[in-house]
Amino acid sequence: MTQQDLQSRKAGHIALVGAGPGARDLLTLRALERIQCADVLLYDRLVDPEIMELASPRAERIYVGKEVGRCAWPQGRIDRLIVAKARLGLRVVRLKSGDPSIFGRACEEIAAARASGIEVEIVPGITAASAAAASICHPLTERGETDTFAVTTGTCRPGDANPDRARLAHPGTSMAFYMAVERAAVVRDDLIGAGAPAECPVEIVASVSTPQERHVSTTLGALAETIAAEGIRNPAILFVRYPKSLARAIRGISAVA
Amino acid sequence: MTQQDLQSRKAGHIALVGAGPGARDLLTLRALERIQCADVLLYDRLVDPEIMELASPRAERIYVGKEVGRCAWPQGRIDRLIVAKARLGLRVVRLKSGDPSIFGRACEEIAAARASGIEVEIVPGITAASAAAASICHPLTERGETDTFAVTTGTCRPGDANPDRARLAHPGTSMAFYMAVERAAVVRDDLIGAGAPAECPVEIVASVSTPQERHVSTTLGALAETIAAEGIRNPAILFVRYPKSLARAIRGISAVA
Repeated sequence: MTQQDLQSRKAGHIALVGAGPGARDLLTLRALERIQCADVLLYDRLVDPEIMELASPRAERIYVGKEVGRCAWPQGRIDRLIVAKARLGLRVVRLKSGDPSIFGRACEEIAAARASGIEVEIVPGITAASAAAASICHPLTERGETDTFAVTTGTCRPGDANPDRARLAHPGTSMAFYMAVERAAVVRDDLIGAGAPAECPVEIVASVSTPQERHVSTTLGALAETIAAEGIRNPAILFVRYPKSLARAIRGISAVA
Repeated sequence: MTQQDLQSRKAGHIALVGAGPGARDLLTLRALERIQCADVLLYDRLVDPEIMELASPRAERIYVGKEVGRCAWPQGRIDRLIVAKARLGLRVVRLKSGDPSIFGRACEEIAAARASGIEVEIVPGITAASAAAASICHPLTERGETDTFAVTTGTCRPGDANPDRARLAHPGTSMAFYMAVERAAVVRDDLIGAGAPAECPVEIVASVSTPQERHVSTTLGALAETIAAEGIRNPAILFVRYPKSLARAIRGISAVA
């Protein structure tokens, strides 16, 4: 080990690394490099075992997800651990499913690192919506049809207000709902209540990029029934589109009626 | 070359490959593999030269972007060319800056491939908003502050209506505007007109992940002036946040006044 290596090890470093949706080859080259150089990796059940195999055999692996009959680690415990490990001069990689910037709770870990004067970075990852769109070969935006793409969640922290979904029920919007399988009836009611047609096409993509990947096509009106009938479970993306042409077609029907 | 290789070459294949925002190490491993195996690559000025160097020296490289004094290739000409090359049994890679699913005009190319019975796939990429959030270490969603993240555009196809930005002016929303530098005054007016506070924080990230990357922090109210004063040019992401705490603070001030 050179003097410079020693110096940089002494400083310690935290990387919040996007592990992508599952498939190993959807990692970025930068994420691969950070994983291979890590002294300590923290991971949870959403990070594919294939990805953990990329780390050095000497690296310490710490599972911070739910175990049978026990809860997941509280965020504060994870924050304290990554800081404590980095203070030992180690390269700490906190693996996050998808992209750490999207529903990755990255803010808490960044704040903890900064409060301790430890260098922290985010390595972006492929978020599930992007992988789902690629897998079904249906882009998230479509010229002339959808000019805005929104990602939102079906499930908020207890005590937080639910996302105001009415704002998304506009022609020209495509929406990816994360963690929403069990909230599908509420999503449907909110969107239809705010004016989205029941005919809006919905693609359900479960376990994207893994061997368990499944696609089901339905409509907003039939969403909850389809999920129940097909036995869809999280992790799954609900990709709802309200194309401009659908809005025009419905206006046309109303005008004739 | 094995019989199987020959067979798969004979069939031809089109991959719409996300080249990410610029930096070579933000490619996915899958994108790298497709680039290295390509017989023909189509690219434009937004694809970094570093990435083109990854292709085989024997691969044909076709520039389909704008040249000095000339227009970019019309989409129909690109569609015809990728189909013609794939029909020769070649592996065609159409490189797209960022993620092909986000403002990548992928639909036209997918439709052209399918109409000719040619296998087509999308390889997802890191979109500029994700790279920008990682670079400034500020996530796109924040627990308790922003539960919805939207990507939209400042510039539509001539003849298309502009995106209805009013729907985004809600507390709890973060927004990334693409191709919006020259439309910043309109974006500001639309959002403020729909109720977003002028105090909403805005991060401008130009040429993300390249050696020319620049960050400027401003507010929604000062956005257009900041862009003019700093000489910001496309490609740049305007990352506008309307946090829930800002909405509460403003309601508090109104209640007291």
